[in-house]
Amino acid sequence: MVAPVRVIPNAAARATSLLRTIQYSHPPTCPCHSNPGYHQSPPIIAPRAVQAGRRRYATPGGNHEQKEYAFEMAASSIRFGPGVTREVGMDFKNMGAKRVCVVTDSTVDKLDAMKQVRQALGSEGISFDVYSNVRIEPKDSSIKDAIAWARPYQPDAFLAVGGGSVIDTAKLMNLYTAYPDADFLDFVNAPLGKGRPVDKPLKPLIAVPTTAGTGSETTGTAIFDLVAKRAKTGVAHRNLKPTLGICDPINTRTMPAAVKASSGLDVLCHSLESWTAIPYNERTPRPQNPILRPAYQGANPISDVFSFHALRRTVKYLPRAIRDPDDFEAQSEMLLASTLAGVGFGNAGVHLCHGMSYPISGQNPGYKHAGYDVSFPIIPHGVSVAVSAPAVFRFTGASNPERHLQAAEVFGVDVSNVKKESAGEVLADALTKFLADLGDQPKGLKGLGFGSEHIEQLVEGTIPQARVLMLAPGLSKELEAEKDQLRRLFEEAMSH
Amino acid sequence: MVAPVRVIPNAAARATSLLRTIQYSHPPTCPCHSNPGYHQSPPIIAPRAVQAGRRRYATPGGNHEQKEYAFEMAASSIRFGPGVTREVGMDFKNMGAKRVCVVTDSTVDKLDAMKQVRQALGSEGISFDVYSNVRIEPKDSSIKDAIAWARPYQPDAFLAVGGGSVIDTAKLMNLYTAYPDADFLDFVNAPLGKGRPVDKPLKPLIAVPTTAGTGSETTGTAIFDLVAKRAKTGVAHRNLKPTLGICDPINTRTMPAAVKASSGLDVLCHSLESWTAIPYNERTPRPQNPILRPAYQGANPISDVFSFHALRRTVKYLPRAIRDPDDFEAQSEMLLASTLAGVGFGNAGVHLCHGMSYPISGQNPGYKHAGYDVSFPIIPHGVSVAVSAPAVFRFTGASNPERHLQAAEVFGVDVSNVKKESAGEVLADALTKFLADLGDQPKGLKGLGFGSEHIEQLVEGTIPQARVLMLAPGLSKELEAEKDQLRRLFEEAMSH
Repeated sequence: MVAPVRVIPNAAARATSLLRTIQYSHPPTCPCHSNPGYHQSPPIIAPRAVQAGRRRYATPGGNHEQKEYAFEMAASSIRFGPGVTREVGMDFKNMGAKRVCVVTDSTVDKLDAMKQVRQALGSEGISFDVYSNVRIEPKDSSIKDAIAWARPYQPDAFLAVGGGSVIDTAKLMNLYTAYPDADFLDFVNAPLGKGRPVDKPLKPLIAVPTTAGTGSETTGTAIFDLVAKRAKTGVAHRNLKPTLGICDPINTRTMPAAVKASSGLDVLCHSLESWTAIPYNERTPRPQNPILRPAYQGANPISDVFSFHALRRTVKYLPRAIRDPDDFEAQSEMLLASTLAGVGFGNAGVHLCHGMSYPISGQNPGYKHAGYDVSFPIIPHGVSVAVSAPAVFRFTGASNPERHLQAAEVFGVDVSNVKKESAGEVLADALTKFLADLGDQPKGLKGLGFGSEHIEQLVEGTIPQARVLMLAPGLSKELEAEKDQLRRLFEEAMSH
Repeated sequence: MVAPVRVIPNAAARATSLLRTIQYSHPPTCPCHSNPGYHQSPPIIAPRAVQAGRRRYATPGGNHEQKEYAFEMAASSIRFGPGVTREVGMDFKNMGAKRVCVVTDSTVDKLDAMKQVRQALGSEGISFDVYSNVRIEPKDSSIKDAIAWARPYQPDAFLAVGGGSVIDTAKLMNLYTAYPDADFLDFVNAPLGKGRPVDKPLKPLIAVPTTAGTGSETTGTAIFDLVAKRAKTGVAHRNLKPTLGICDPINTRTMPAAVKASSGLDVLCHSLESWTAIPYNERTPRPQNPILRPAYQGANPISDVFSFHALRRTVKYLPRAIRDPDDFEAQSEMLLASTLAGVGFGNAGVHLCHGMSYPISGQNPGYKHAGYDVSFPIIPHGVSVAVSAPAVFRFTGASNPERHLQAAEVFGVDVSNVKKESAGEVLADALTKFLADLGDQPKGLKGLGFGSEHIEQLVEGTIPQARVLMLAPGLSKELEAEKDQLRRLFEEAMSH
């Protein structure tokens, strides 16, 4: 399905482009095919504008033809400071919570963060039970176990202490406890699930991250493996957002170096993908009701501030944080970068690295990343995301050379004499070097055990990632052409 | 009262300074005298740290001796786009509101923004009444009138459509409707009021700014003139924050040039003051409970991102926005800058320009700013704030030369050969030139009709602004010395 080229008058063109601070040069895209839910919306009524100044924004045509004209920025409150974990008991007392469901995993359960949490809740007399069976890189089955545990417990608040897997699992425990009769697929992103909107507020959730990567403490997104489909998917809605993210840099000191690296690579891709996602005002269709505006709405002037700032911090501090376990400054900065990137991508979205990562980790041929203390094969999320980054940004460079060059500059590249046509290549090279310098990273999909025989299945596993693919600049609107592009991307990602 | 110089071990010193991305060089300050409420807090219990890494953050001593170690960032959700006002009816319907109190002033009531609002609410069948008697630069009497109107109306949600005066009045209508038996001074900032904390959630409030200045759509602050004390004061609490700020750049096109200028100067000072405020981890005392952590907590790594970004936008776009009424890009950028600065100062605070501005506008000797369509003398808030800015930043320069030079650079100053000692002077000169180039601005307090005979009263009117003075770098902790500094600041602000 190709978007019709509409002739828009100069005044309207000027008005709609004015708000973009940085030029985007790619042609309009129509990602409708990848987001079937939107087709259910009837055409928006052209506003009954009452003055010339307003009338120019009223464009005719059906809803799915109209581009977005607004963006919305929402984020959890964030508290940041070394030792701040111990305040969490007072927070629950302040909100009147009496029965807290504490969610963690078996490793974090033994760490100081959970000791602090137990003391903090205990000293305020808050009743709590701990669910510590969260699976790292959760599957639908592990999520269902957690929900089955939470439903009869009937907590009046949730506390997640751990990495993204823990925080995401807690979000889903909170969601499905509030909807006791819902089927698991009801809220899962379409087309794999039914994409039912979350239409009531959930219980308060406080998230205490123990890794510096996910940004999940600030977002309304929860991701897991849908095993039957061999793909990662999830639930995304603003109501899933934690009430408060408690970012305590003491808690991330316990990360093994391998976890520091892979979670940091997630931050890197969150910031780069949200920085280069299609702009919000190129997204179609314009939502008929503000409640239908997705959280992943494309790059916008506020997410840009967060994403670019997080990129600069990550490039500066991630190598230091991995190299020196005593470099507390670098580790603190990475936790902050992770949270800032969370606000950025939480409001702008991610695209191809994440879209392709879900089948990469879901279809793992048996790779077990060094430094991960688990008994099963695992491609950590950050690794699965970063492995395709050089290929992805080589591909997306043409969509917005200026932004790709600005990003390359952050890696220290002198871009003063680089031609626009080389923007993607230059950023890809910078990323390749950055990944190599970090050490212990697979040099492409081959390093994970994938071969060309896997590409077709990887493409098939990527296509359902509608929510992020719709934000990928330069991706074709036509299914077969899109598959061809993804095939080439996976091929190019085989080695870098 | 002078803070004792504590000898802190190297490990603790390193740990507490690590999180600051930019060095602050001023000595520790003890602003306790200016914040009497804090003395009520008993000493915090040193945390029962369970590992060496955590123990280093446990410093001994009473609560009011301990510096802050954490910051919290909270902001209203923000929706931004030309024409987005028309979504507001759906927003109230989505939240189930059936009876909305619409707050505006008599000028805005006739503008397109209010027509859009009436249509939007009407088309969704939302019942509403309009209170249009908000006073520009509100006094306690006008606030009380508004509250008396709202209490019997018993709305289930509020909608503010206007500038800072309107949004602030709506916040207080919401607050005092939720506390029907409260005395007006109960919640007003100490020491002028009783500083009672807001301990329950208020009704939803959506704010639609029609000026690009206040940032009030993102903050929990409401300011008014307390006539009996001849000083501006207000109420500040996170619970006053609007649920959603709807930033529609079409609504700010109706601002007269004079309003564009003075509201833009407010943005300029919001960003400069929050950028140069004392860092959060120099603030004392450390709150005993997170609920006591003030919204105005000092500069922190997240507010810095917002404040500096807003400063750059303002310096770039404010002159264009004033000069050309058809420069919609500049006007849109100023609305965005205003909102971003709101998030910045809403979490970091402001200091001397704002602290001194309250007696300046409250003790107006009879000045009526050109271009304001009111029947009474008026020093617009932005004018009263900016008039002292050169004197203020000359004074604060020594506290953090790097930040003052970074700010001067934004104004186009080549700072490569500027000595640190001159940082304040250089920024003051840049501000003086910027204000002169804008045109129609008073060249100091003399231009507003103040003379040296007014200084003592202006100083007396500034001293009660504890909430912002405690964030002023370089201000003495000793009352008489502080008054001397303020006298000199007002003298220097007489002409620039």
